[in-house]
Amino acid sequence: MNYRMMGRFIAQILLLEGLFMLPAMFISLAYRESTAAKAFVLTIVLLLVISVLLRFFCRGAKSNFYATDGMVCVAMSWIILSLTGCLPFVISREIPRFIDALFEIVSGFTTTGASILPAVEPLSKGILYWRSFSHWVGGMGVLVFLLAVAPSSDRGKGFTMHLLRAESPGPSVGKLVPKMRKTAAILYFLYMLLTVLNILFLLLGRMPLFEAVCTAFGTAGTGGFGVKNDSFASYSPYLQNVTTVFMLLFGVNFSCYYLLLLGQIRSVFKDEELRAYLGIAFCSVLLIAWNIRGMYASVGETLRHAAFQVSSIMTTTGFATTDFDLWPSFSKTILLCLMVIGASAGSTGGGIKVSRVLLLFKSLRRSFLQMLHPNRVQVVWNNDQAVDEKVVESTNAYLIAYVFILFISFLLLSLDGFSTGTNFSAVLCCFNNIGPGLEAVGPTCNFSAFSVLSKLVLILDMLLGRLEIFPILCLLSRHTWQRSIR
Amino acid sequence: MNYRMMGRFIAQILLLEGLFMLPAMFISLAYRESTAAKAFVLTIVLLLVISVLLRFFCRGAKSNFYATDGMVCVAMSWIILSLTGCLPFVISREIPRFIDALFEIVSGFTTTGASILPAVEPLSKGILYWRSFSHWVGGMGVLVFLLAVAPSSDRGKGFTMHLLRAESPGPSVGKLVPKMRKTAAILYFLYMLLTVLNILFLLLGRMPLFEAVCTAFGTAGTGGFGVKNDSFASYSPYLQNVTTVFMLLFGVNFSCYYLLLLGQIRSVFKDEELRAYLGIAFCSVLLIAWNIRGMYASVGETLRHAAFQVSSIMTTTGFATTDFDLWPSFSKTILLCLMVIGASAGSTGGGIKVSRVLLLFKSLRRSFLQMLHPNRVQVVWNNDQAVDEKVVESTNAYLIAYVFILFISFLLLSLDGFSTGTNFSAVLCCFNNIGPGLEAVGPTCNFSAFSVLSKLVLILDMLLGRLEIFPILCLLSRHTWQRSIR
Repeated sequence: MNYRMMGRFIAQILLLEGLFMLPAMFISLAYRESTAAKAFVLTIVLLLVISVLLRFFCRGAKSNFYATDGMVCVAMSWIILSLTGCLPFVISREIPRFIDALFEIVSGFTTTGASILPAVEPLSKGILYWRSFSHWVGGMGVLVFLLAVAPSSDRGKGFTMHLLRAESPGPSVGKLVPKMRKTAAILYFLYMLLTVLNILFLLLGRMPLFEAVCTAFGTAGTGGFGVKNDSFASYSPYLQNVTTVFMLLFGVNFSCYYLLLLGQIRSVFKDEELRAYLGIAFCSVLLIAWNIRGMYASVGETLRHAAFQVSSIMTTTGFATTDFDLWPSFSKTILLCLMVIGASAGSTGGGIKVSRVLLLFKSLRRSFLQMLHPNRVQVVWNNDQAVDEKVVESTNAYLIAYVFILFISFLLLSLDGFSTGTNFSAVLCCFNNIGPGLEAVGPTCNFSAFSVLSKLVLILDMLLGRLEIFPILCLLSRHTWQRSIR
Repeated sequence: MNYRMMGRFIAQILLLEGLFMLPAMFISLAYRESTAAKAFVLTIVLLLVISVLLRFFCRGAKSNFYATDGMVCVAMSWIILSLTGCLPFVISREIPRFIDALFEIVSGFTTTGASILPAVEPLSKGILYWRSFSHWVGGMGVLVFLLAVAPSSDRGKGFTMHLLRAESPGPSVGKLVPKMRKTAAILYFLYMLLTVLNILFLLLGRMPLFEAVCTAFGTAGTGGFGVKNDSFASYSPYLQNVTTVFMLLFGVNFSCYYLLLLGQIRSVFKDEELRAYLGIAFCSVLLIAWNIRGMYASVGETLRHAAFQVSSIMTTTGFATTDFDLWPSFSKTILLCLMVIGASAGSTGGGIKVSRVLLLFKSLRRSFLQMLHPNRVQVVWNNDQAVDEKVVESTNAYLIAYVFILFISFLLLSLDGFSTGTNFSAVLCCFNNIGPGLEAVGPTCNFSAFSVLSKLVLILDMLLGRLEIFPILCLLSRHTWQRSIR
């Protein structure tokens, strides 16, 4: 394990977090929120001190860096980011309990959007901004950002690649360009471009600037923290529709946008994952609109609510225009299924990911055909290319881990005594980074009633979901920490 | 596809079903239930006629018989057995609707024990007997029975093996002895022995003979159909404890008993699946007893109820001594987890099976280690033997299929508009062959309220669960029916 290089890297991450807090601090100052401003200043100073100390103690790092180091480094970074990122909430006393503040910031960074707050409107502007910004930077990845902007002089072999692999969602990182660092930069450029576009469209609908920026952060990161208590219900149909479209756009694999920029339109539209993603979303909207017909004034309104909720849940954003917990159970079940499927790989969305679901289906089909014809070699295809057996195997492993984690979390949560439906949907929503669930954690409710143990379990679930299980498993596994390799 | 041999085999199966109905007919006659007796006579005559006709039309079968044929043959046999087995219910007008009668008999043969009847006590003795007997013969397998007793002159190469493989539960059929037919005979001998022992113990507790026989059938097949409306609540603690032990015994891999008979006691107690099975059951009893403390009069009573319900749910039997839907949610969640895990491979129980869960866990561990150390070859071990990669792969495929089927069924059931919890537990209970679930399908309720579509889905789920997915998939797949092999 290359501890020194990890230490140096985490020092950089903390410095970056301090920089990210500056705008929030200025907003607090501009709105004359002295408590919040003080909280940000204190946290930034603390981050600076830790960063300098870490840098000092981790001089002279070796340059070899393996896949395991990458996974541990990513997992550690996220945990440290969360532990320090929640300090403004605690110091400003706007979320006085540490466990609640930690829950809130992990929910922010992992783009979950689950909240322990009964109402967000009493929060100060600075805190609201920091809360929403955590979605934006968590969506595409904090480490990816650092890799894109920081100089790479002191980094070892495979460093960038292993970190990118561990932090990016999806079964395999598509190399956009041969240099990983350039990939990270392109991703963030596209991400910023889309976010700015989103802000502009919201401003056109007469949303105030501060709200537009925070909402765009929540949409871009597919997070779901809003600045209003009723999420999206009181916004105009235009703003709702704009957000429906942008949520869907942020759930698309970003390499598709890169290909579009290069003019390779045909290969984008032939992409199996994109087709499946849009197809599932389209069918779900139609089925739900049919199922909830008569609940709203017009067909247009019905379609608008159906489309918004489908887009919000499938991309695991978690905004809501209506209390879908009151919808008939067929619609709720469709939403539950969409929660599990999630968005595309290489997007900011969570869930199992469409491409992984496709791979699982193809892997099942392959095994089945092999059972029928044991003597033929079967290959799994994706976009007319044979899929590496290692990817198939790790996708299978992902499903197994997914199911085990789901059941263990479900069991631990049930100690609190809420209903089976509540527990199950709370775990699903945190693990898939969605946010609001059904029943007691529905769109009009929050997670504050759970015990400390349950909150810890859900925090771990959110991190497991965002980092796609293995980095966290790696951090917790004794095999990682054994010096002698068996 | 060897249609003729399948036809001849199904003719034998139908004849056997007719023979199995004779005792039920005699019981009806003895109790002077003329309508039920007539229903059995009519069905037996019909079975005879179809059998003779099938035999006549399927003369001159070729002898080659492949794995695919085996799977299709098993799936077809079970469907035809069910379609004809429910006729006595319909003809006697005791379950007048065909879909309900079909649900009931499929629930019987698949040892699910889910019922559409609000009360079983009004049923005639003959019908009650047939209902319970379907558990007994379905538990170990109808085809296995036929293979064990019928002459094997006209069977082709691989015939017995492929059928046994397709009908027996678990990731791989353990060959007890080189000859498959002898294996089938040994299995049924042990099965009868245990059933007779169970009847004797029940008689010692002063249970009337008829009830003892029916209860033992339900226990042996891990089915769960009883002869009383309140299942096991009104029986004495002795009878409840006897049944707890026997349910647990019938959930053990039968090859363990064979090894015991051979005196290989050490290898039985070193068996990983047996240890895990008993360990999980033991821990679950303790956890539940702790969780429901104070709900019953004494510690003894608490332990008795906890042990009975754990044994009943884990072996997927479905008897109940108390309404566990009223237990706290931690206990209910443990029971839900046990439903999914299920009993041992090679037993009469359902669920994913303990050995498969172990294999999945080991396969996950292997993939994880391979991620940490990409250049080392990792092997999955079971009972100190390397597991064939094909078994690992088909176990992974099983989990994928399991999850897909669960979600599709869940979605289709939600069209009826019951609560999410009800739908989910109904699907879990039918797919894992348990019987009663939670909420609206809890131990004090029944499945009659579901629509015809939902009942069909649940019937298919029960068959998919009992035959472990692939034979039914094989029957429904277009690849099976394509003449030209790609």
